[in-house]
Amino acid sequence: MSIEIADEYLEIDPARVAEQLCNFLRVEIGNAGFHRGVLGLSGGLDSSVVAALCARALGPENVLAVSMPYKTSSEETICDSRTIVQWLGIRALDLPITDQVDAYFRRIGEASLLRVANKCARERMSILYDQSAAFDALVVGTSNKSEILLGYGTQYGDTASAINPVGDLYKTQLRRLAAYLEVPPQIIAKPPSADLWAGQTDEDELGLVYAEVDRLLVLMVDRQWRRDELEAAGFKGELIERATALMDRNRFKRGMPLIAKLIRD
Amino acid sequence: MSIEIADEYLEIDPARVAEQLCNFLRVEIGNAGFHRGVLGLSGGLDSSVVAALCARALGPENVLAVSMPYKTSSEETICDSRTIVQWLGIRALDLPITDQVDAYFRRIGEASLLRVANKCARERMSILYDQSAAFDALVVGTSNKSEILLGYGTQYGDTASAINPVGDLYKTQLRRLAAYLEVPPQIIAKPPSADLWAGQTDEDELGLVYAEVDRLLVLMVDRQWRRDELEAAGFKGELIERATALMDRNRFKRGMPLIAKLIRD
Repeated sequence: MSIEIADEYLEIDPARVAEQLCNFLRVEIGNAGFHRGVLGLSGGLDSSVVAALCARALGPENVLAVSMPYKTSSEETICDSRTIVQWLGIRALDLPITDQVDAYFRRIGEASLLRVANKCARERMSILYDQSAAFDALVVGTSNKSEILLGYGTQYGDTASAINPVGDLYKTQLRRLAAYLEVPPQIIAKPPSADLWAGQTDEDELGLVYAEVDRLLVLMVDRQWRRDELEAAGFKGELIERATALMDRNRFKRGMPLIAKLIRD
Repeated sequence: MSIEIADEYLEIDPARVAEQLCNFLRVEIGNAGFHRGVLGLSGGLDSSVVAALCARALGPENVLAVSMPYKTSSEETICDSRTIVQWLGIRALDLPITDQVDAYFRRIGEASLLRVANKCARERMSILYDQSAAFDALVVGTSNKSEILLGYGTQYGDTASAINPVGDLYKTQLRRLAAYLEVPPQIIAKPPSADLWAGQTDEDELGLVYAEVDRLLVLMVDRQWRRDELEAAGFKGELIERATALMDRNRFKRGMPLIAKLIRD
């Protein structure tokens, strides 16, 4: 037994997966009475894959990609988003969020980078929902399974959507799907980043490397391996504890509001 | 059998309900590792009741009420919010949302009143979550059972919260609870309104009267009466259809994003 065994469980047949996900998008968006999708395009891997799936499933003219940079967003981010739009021939809107977010924080004064990042994520969600009303479309989500399990995302922000085609794919698997879909190589190559500040990467912030944590998660969550089995396979106790702590702490993000239920005596 | 029978099912013992809901707030906020709550105060019945419950359950110093008027919000709304804050002695913040919302729509141009209203609701949610981080508190929701069932609310806006003490109470029942909690009478007396424009009332917009639709909902949803039983009890077909249509159309608001699940052959 070794860590490599997990790679086998992470293997996907990208052609079949792409087909399944395109069917899912077409059928479920249709069931809801729509035939269009709107998504936030960050120029990163996840939103590029979702844009490509939507373009295949719905036709490029039925996909609206909204780019919503904040003043700290990098030039690379904006540039990569344009590349995706041109590559797929989908509709696009540029709606910077700096004015709205700064109007709020001007009133508040000092706030942490995390608070600003969460406000940005929720402003983007709010814009996507408004644009979905204007474009008569559903909001298509881009959170992957690694992020959802670890809770790396803003509740009612980037994790909010009507329909999410990639939520059952680990980051590692999404990368393989991206290659199959011929997402431009510079987008596949760059380190995952929420682009919160210059040089920020998800992996630094999480204190985890996706290639490693995905191997752990697929065994722990999907295969239900016990801790002793995971350790015997070579996973470090520290990694197991870090991943478990993140999952526990952020479980609330995967649920609906807790509503009091009244009972009679 | 007559419509009056439904009133019996809507009856509550307000002292017991208040006690149950205060326990719920204390225990569940504590379980999440917090002892404070933050809520949006509109000066209406629902948020006034929730503010009163929070003040009882957590102590007034642990409750932050945020008033977030838009430029079209009425003076009465702002004034009634102040009355509640003074009555309960809770903490308060005034954070108008006009600058943020207008910064967005300036870029967009023309938009319907509904789109503006939804953008306002999501901006308020976003502010409450930011303030919950600053105040080390959970966001306490104020949606009632009538609104939740009929889908009268903005998804990821006013319907979003960490914990909601009043989601199992119909509007009619909340009114009784408000009287028991000694909410100022002018707040109990005024017609329910999302304050979207001057003179707007929920009942006009829904095309339903709460006193009537609550009677229907308690029989249809909680007691599972069939259509013929409801009609025999005197409910008009038109009312039953209107309520059913709203529940069907807005069911999606009560769920999480639909995530594709991958299967192997």
